[in-house]
This record gives sequence, structure tokens and C-alpha cells, in this order.
Amino acid sequence: MYSAHCFSTTKSKAVQRAAAKTGSGPRPGPRVHSLTSPLSSSSPARALSGLPKGKMTENGMASRGKVLTIDTMNPTVKKVEYAVRGPIVQRAVQLEKELREGAKKPFAEVIKANIGDAHAMGQQPITFFRQVLALCSYPELLNDSTFPEDAKSRARRILQSCGGSSIGAYSASQGIDCVRQDVARYIEQRDGGIPCDPDNIYLTTGASDGIVTMLKLLVCGEGKSRTGVMISIPQYPLYSAALAELGAVQINYYLNEEKCWSLDISELQRALDEARRHCNPRALCIINPGNPTGQVQSRQCIEDVIRFAAKERLLLMADEVYQDNVYADGCKFHSFKKVLFEMGPEFSNNVELASFHSTSKCYMGECGFRGGYMEIINMDAEVKAQLTKLVSVRLCPPVPGQALMDLVVNCPQPGEPSYNNFMKERTATLGVLAEKAKLTEQILNTVPGISCNPVQGAMYSFPRITIPEKAIREAKKGQAPDMLYCMKLLEETGICLVPGSGFGQKEGTYHFRMTILPATDKLKILLSKVKEFHQKFTQQYS
Amino acid sequence: MYSAHCFSTTKSKAVQRAAAKTGSGPRPGPRVHSLTSPLSSSSPARALSGLPKGKMTENGMASRGKVLTIDTMNPTVKKVEYAVRGPIVQRAVQLEKELREGAKKPFAEVIKANIGDAHAMGQQPITFFRQVLALCSYPELLNDSTFPEDAKSRARRILQSCGGSSIGAYSASQGIDCVRQDVARYIEQRDGGIPCDPDNIYLTTGASDGIVTMLKLLVCGEGKSRTGVMISIPQYPLYSAALAELGAVQINYYLNEEKCWSLDISELQRALDEARRHCNPRALCIINPGNPTGQVQSRQCIEDVIRFAAKERLLLMADEVYQDNVYADGCKFHSFKKVLFEMGPEFSNNVELASFHSTSKCYMGECGFRGGYMEIINMDAEVKAQLTKLVSVRLCPPVPGQALMDLVVNCPQPGEPSYNNFMKERTATLGVLAEKAKLTEQILNTVPGISCNPVQGAMYSFPRITIPEKAIREAKKGQAPDMLYCMKLLEETGICLVPGSGFGQKEGTYHFRMTILPATDKLKILLSKVKEFHQKFTQQYS
Repeated sequence: MYSAHCFSTTKSKAVQRAAAKTGSGPRPGPRVHSLTSPLSSSSPARALSGLPKGKMTENGMASRGKVLTIDTMNPTVKKVEYAVRGPIVQRAVQLEKELREGAKKPFAEVIKANIGDAHAMGQQPITFFRQVLALCSYPELLNDSTFPEDAKSRARRILQSCGGSSIGAYSASQGIDCVRQDVARYIEQRDGGIPCDPDNIYLTTGASDGIVTMLKLLVCGEGKSRTGVMISIPQYPLYSAALAELGAVQINYYLNEEKCWSLDISELQRALDEARRHCNPRALCIINPGNPTGQVQSRQCIEDVIRFAAKERLLLMADEVYQDNVYADGCKFHSFKKVLFEMGPEFSNNVELASFHSTSKCYMGECGFRGGYMEIINMDAEVKAQLTKLVSVRLCPPVPGQALMDLVVNCPQPGEPSYNNFMKERTATLGVLAEKAKLTEQILNTVPGISCNPVQGAMYSFPRITIPEKAIREAKKGQAPDMLYCMKLLEETGICLVPGSGFGQKEGTYHFRMTILPATDKLKILLSKVKEFHQKFTQQYS
Repeated sequence: MYSAHCFSTTKSKAVQRAAAKTGSGPRPGPRVHSLTSPLSSSSPARALSGLPKGKMTENGMASRGKVLTIDTMNPTVKKVEYAVRGPIVQRAVQLEKELREGAKKPFAEVIKANIGDAHAMGQQPITFFRQVLALCSYPELLNDSTFPEDAKSRARRILQSCGGSSIGAYSASQGIDCVRQDVARYIEQRDGGIPCDPDNIYLTTGASDGIVTMLKLLVCGEGKSRTGVMISIPQYPLYSAALAELGAVQINYYLNEEKCWSLDISELQRALDEARRHCNPRALCIINPGNPTGQVQSRQCIEDVIRFAAKERLLLMADEVYQDNVYADGCKFHSFKKVLFEMGPEFSNNVELASFHSTSKCYMGECGFRGGYMEIINMDAEVKAQLTKLVSVRLCPPVPGQALMDLVVNCPQPGEPSYNNFMKERTATLGVLAEKAKLTEQILNTVPGISCNPVQGAMYSFPRITIPEKAIREAKKGQAPDMLYCMKLLEETGICLVPGSGFGQKEGTYHFRMTILPATDKLKILLSKVKEFHQKFTQQYS
């Protein structure tokens, strides 16, 4: 007999549920504060729980203490920080809840400009993409005459590549074959015909997954031999979080705020030379267009970076998830792959490059699907085999995300029934983003004490804010001054931004990151509230 | 201006693509074989590439050698093994390709019984689930009168909980609120009213993701203080792979094959006592119903395990992804949570438990969506905060998978329009699985030299096979004897199984894992081919 419990809904479990508040009891043992490893006894859990080894309670249980405590958990996990969803966002969620429950606040709604989450801010999905996803989910719809033929043919092609023609089957761990072929063709076309081998494409669970996987391959050695990885400051905190978790050394190079967050090779050299004294630098990460700083790198700069990586024997990691988000006049997206190959075989046959893309940004903004790919160039064959093995442990990236990635790289073509509508939606979305990028920069720059570089690309502005000495002194008691600033902004206006300290910034400078994603009317309200708040804040602490 | 490159399709890039076969060039430096760290110089990459530090080529490049080689990559990644997608599966994929290209083989098709991938083996998705997913993907369909009302109401509820009412928005990192509430209510009903707090539920990217995350929290210490984790042998190789990657100590306890793969507490004690001499055992992992061994634990056994964990201060990890897959008379699924709470506050207030579920198995078999959840009980509040922070770095589990998880725990109820059809599909699928479980056991046990325990639950049989001494000697030259067996089986019959050595087994015993998922007629062919092959193999090596 097999069990077939399908329960009918029982209501009002509230009382029982209240009783279930487990997992929040007091911690038993004394907390050991130590930056060096506190785990030197042969049985750290016992040692730290405050009980002698082997002590038994009456009923034979060794201890009331938890097995897993803050003192006995993985120390590298403790070091992880991720500001984009940090305390300020938790407070924003709480405020939303309080508002829903009728609390009186000086604002009617919380506006979240903390995260590049386009749909959450009202951006509409691309119709064609969602039609194909619906067809893949419920193939009965292939008989529905209201769906356009090109959507159906895309869905059929994807389904034919799935085991049992179902997106519910596991795919190959590297990703569905036909999707990887489409990605390769997309890259070839994007890069003016430079060849791309589908075998070098790995589909991923969002770009984050690919980035972490590449970093994981790189980490080895101890002490001065420990792998170091160069990341820009300000950076997207996935990088620092992943490096902390992997126990790798984070090597900071500073972007030049005075020159619109551009990258100076001399600064790369300084950071590298310094790092070589205490670790083994092996990789250089670039985010272009920039997150959180919104700059778009020039072709010359990319060439210089590649030359530097080649000279210094660094593996290049190019985070290019904003490749369609370029707004400023005179700016253009250049892929690292294309520039590398245009520099000739001296470079294109040698420099190891991993580049990353995603379904989450650009004009589609489909974050929830966790789709993405990485392309690896010049990777050692044995390492590649290890990479393939490593990704197989997680079985496969989510198949709906793979399907979506396919649509991004294989979008409607001229002559197909969905082409016009697709282009209309795509162009409108990117057009609005370009407008908002301009608007954000312009309004912020009217505020004395705020200075904002042009938002050339991506989805963020990262303006510098002047914080009065008095506020800095107040904050020094326990928090970063820009955290104080952003927390006050949230409490007084309902606007949720992320303090610059969560991304890293030059000592003594303060910033916040703000997405340009809120709808234009809301963005205007947001900017005028920031303006008003900044003036008040400055006055209050002067 | 923003870029809006949407490329038209260019064909016949084959020549260029052939030129792009990068990443497979010869490895430059000599390979250093060493089990102790070869990375003692201050710049291991340079040292191992065979070039003196700082040596420059004419054009200023430091070296032709790769930054990342098999010798300079993460040593823990190299130790990872994952048999379910190992060399035998790679060969199967290759054979399929050869067949497609017209190669002559002694078989017309490859039958894959290596992985629990139900849809790939022809199992049909649950209609209701796919209807709701289509509605969530393309909400225009909410106006389509052919969709049932209960599907629409589920979709509306999920969409309302998403940012911007889109499954393309990021969710909370712990998962969508309403889905976690539904999971909690499902667990309460499954467990006869024992309360469940939605705050203890974390949605995951398949169960694998939750398991790896929990293990990650647990790992700390060095040498004799290093975290050890107890896993059953035979095991599902995700566990050994994750432990290898995390550098934790794998502690093997052997299931009792003679007693239908049951778990003996004395064996747990033996394994634990031995392990305490060289590491710090902190967690005990159980898979029930069992993978790869198909046993279903008795309530008494679960109680004994909980008592053991309490006495020995071990955190319990219960992998319960096959909770609906129970086929054998007299067997029933008991959740660890329920048994724990029935044992009284002495246990339910103290023993730390993490249990895992998934959308990939049971009657739904939706592997591609990578949906899952974990419930944590009695977790220290500070550790829980760290867990929440850790999962936030990856932003959120795939939202379509979360939606699917919601449907599994909030399935059609009596009186709802989809109820009858849902129950019909569910019952049919589980009924067929039960039949195939019986069939597999019965036929395998007719083969001299194969003995198969009853497939009480899950989706696998793990029969023991007698391999002649001559075959063992032949295999000893470089591979496990059951790998030789399975590889020959594949080459001669097109049947793809996984050798027992990929899961672990008692020294000197040999097995294979075979799923019961192929359609009944195909399963019969498969079993008769295995029978015939085994007899031939035995003869050949006698």
C-alpha cells in the first residue's frame, strides 16, 4: 500500500503555532569572543557549551546546550556580509508590515530602491517570453490559437530538448544543449562573428551561481599562498560575501570617482603589488556596466585591463549582466570576449576569461527565474572537466530559467509574428530606464552636499553625500555614518536605499546606492524626498 | 542612447566555431602529484607552471601557463565525486549520440535507469500544477475560461505575494511568505496537528541546496576538532560530495543489508566511537525512505535514532524527499518531526533537527523546477540569523519552483473543481510506482547471483550482485568491479545503471542502483536484459 495523504484544510492553528516558536530560546553557554580560532580543544562544541566533556544529565542526554551555536558554527559564514538585503532592508519589510497593520508613519508607503528588482518596481514582463514559458509549462496550450506561432515554435524546440519533453525533467548539468547552442550563436552575433563554442557555455542559477562556482575553483593555498581575488571598490557585495565564505583574500582596487568611476591601471598595479606581499593574487573581477556605480568602461580601458591581466597572470572574471543597460551618449557596451579576440592570438589564445550574463537585468528583469550563463575561454581542459563534475552535484540549473535564457538569446526576429511587439516593449523599457538614469543624476546634483556621477549604464546611481562631523561622531558609536543616514532616511520618509559602506568606499567618503527602477512619478517623489531629507539632516547635525 | 542590438540569425558559423575550440590546449607545466599541499611557495601558480617567478616573455607576458590548472585549483573540489552523473552516464550520452548518427549497436536505444528523473522516463506532470504554473507565467490566461477556478485562485494568491505581482521578481530570501505559511500548514496536517512555525521554513533550490546549506553552517575546526558528519552507507552521493567540498569528515555507518537495509543503533555507536578519535562528530544524516536502498524506517527505529542523537549531541538531518513514495505492505512514512514531538518535551525542546522536502520526487517528479523546503527545529536564534543572512547572498530560490512547492503542499481539496482529476493522476502515478517496485524486486530475485531487498519505498532498487573472481581481478587494474560490470552492461545492452561503488558498500560486496522509473513495458525489457547479461557475464568470467 502506498500512502496518499492529501489533507483537507484545517483552520485556526494559531494557538498551536504560537506554541511552536521553537528555535528562539536563550543560548546556554557563555559567548567566546575571539578572532583567532576558538576551536582548539578536541571537542569544541562541548568545550564551548560550558559543560565538561561527557557530562550527562539525569535522562542520559549529554547536555542541554545546542550542537550548533554562534560560537561553534562555520566561522567563514559568520564573516559573510550582504548589504543589499541587510538590516536596513529588514527594517523596511518591518515598516511595511506596520503600515499594513495601521501604524501611523510620516509616509504612506515604503519605496524600495535598494535592489535591482525591476518587476517588483512595476516593470512589465516581455509578453513573448511569458507566452513561451506558459506554453512550456502547460503544453496543452500549443493547441490554443491565440498564441503566436513563433512562441509555439520556441516552446516546441525547448520541450524537444527536455527529457520526456517536460521542463520538469532534469537537464544536463551544464544546461540544455539547444540553449547552449543558442547562447553561443548570440555571443557570436553580439561580438561581430568571433566564434563561440557551445561547449564553453555553462547555464547557471542566475549570474551569482556562476561567479561563486568560478571563485570556488580558484581558491587554494594557505597563509601567503592563499588565493587572492581583485575586486573593485565600490563592489557588488556578492563578491565580498563569496570570498569571505570561501576563505579567499579580497584584494580591493578603487574606482576613480573623480573620473566617473573609471578604472585606472595604476591603481590595479598598486593593489596587486601590495597584495603580493601577503597572498597569491590569481583573478581580477570587473563589473561592466558597473554595479553599484553605473559606469560603462571604454574599449581602451578594457584592452588595458586585459593587457594587465596577461602581464600579471590573472584570470579575468567579467560580470556583464547589464550589457543591454547602456544609456549615456558616447557610451557603448564592449564585451571582454570581443576585445580579447580583437587583440590577437597573443591574448586570445592565452588569457583565461570567464564572463557572466543573466536573465535578471537588461530589459527583461526576470530575477525570480534565476537564469544565467557563463562562457569560459582558455580554461585548462582538466579544470574544465572538474568544473563539469562540480556543477553536476547540484544536478542542473532551474529549467524554466534555462528556457528564459534561451528566449533572451533567441528573441523574435524581423518577419516573425511577435517581432514588432517584442521590439516595442524592449525599446520602451530601455527608453524609460535611460530617462530615469538622466533624471536621477540631474535631480541629485541639485542638492547641496550630494554629488552624483552620470548613470552611464546598469540600474544604479551611487552618489557621494556629505555627512556633517557631528553625525559622523554620533554614528561612530556603533554604525557606519552612511548607515545612520540611510536608516534615518528610511524612518522619516519610507525610502529604502543601501549605504555605501555596504559596497565599500574610500575611507572618509560616504555614499548610498539607489536603483533607478521606481516608476518615473515615484522616482520623482523619491528624489524630492531625498533632497528634502538631506537638507534637514545637514541642518540637524550642523 | 541605449544599445538595442537584437541580432538577426546568421547561419553556418561552423567553420568559425571549429576555430573556437579554446580551452583544450595542452597543459604547460609538469604535473605535481602530491597528497600533501603542494602550495608551499609564496606563489604556487608560478612555481607549478614551471617558470621562475617573474619571468617575462618578449611581449611582456609573464608566462604561457594557465593561471588555473589541475594542480593549482581548489583541492577540495578535486575530491568531489558524484556517481549519479559520473563516467557511466557520460558514456550513455555519447552512445545516444552515436545511435542518432546511425552507428550500429547491439541495442536500438539507451535506457537510463541511473537517476530519479521521472518525467524523463515518461511520467506525466500533474495537470493542475502545470495549469497554475502557466497562469503564473502568463497572467493573461486568468481571463481564459478553460482554466479551472481553483487553479486560477491558487495562481492569484501566489502572484499577489510576489513583488509587482510577477514571478519574475525576487522573493524574500527565505521564500515567499504565503508559500512558507502553506508549507507550515501542510506539515501540521501531515504530522497530526503538531504545530509548525512558518518562520522555521526555508524554501530551497531543490533539497540538495538545503542540505548543502545546513552542512555549510556546521563545518568548523581543524585536525581532531574538524566537524564530522555521519552518513549512511550506501548513501546518496550528494552527501559525500558536499562533505568533500566543505572539507568536513565523512563518518560512515553501514545499513544492514541482511535486514532489508535497516539501521542498527549499535552500528551508529560503533561508527561514532571510532570517529571521535579523529574528528568532532556533530551531525547525523538519515535518508528515509532510503536512497539508494529503498527501505522505509519503522517508527521504533526513528525513535531510537532520535534518542541516540540526543544522547550523543548530534544535530539531525532528515532527508524526507520520498515521503509519499511508500509501497510495501505494513510500511508507513513517519516524519522525524512528528516522532520527535511525540517523544515529549525532553526531546522536542532540545534535539536540533533539519528536515528536507522537494518537488522532484513523490508523485509529482518535477525535478527541473528545483523546488524544495527545509524545516529547522530548535535551531539557536543567532545561528538562524546567520542562516538567513547566508541564504540572502544568493538572493532567492527560483520563484517558479517556489510556486510549485506551494501547489504540492496546497493541493486541490475535496469539493474543488480539480480535486477528482488531481487525485486520479496522483493515485495512478503512485499505483504504477508500487507495481514497478514489486516487479523489479521479483524479477531481479529470479536471477542466480543477484539478490534484491524489497523496494519498500523511494524510487530505487539496490540489488547485490555476485561478481566472479576473474572479473574482480580484471577490474582491479583500474576500476571498481561493479563499474566494470555496469560499463559492460551499458555497452552490450544500452542499459545505464550506477555501480554500487558510487554510493558506498561494504568491502567485498557489489551492487548497482537502478531506478524503478522506466515505463512498465520498458522496465520489463530492462530487467530481462539485465538477467540475460548477468548470466552471460558470470559465464564469461567463470
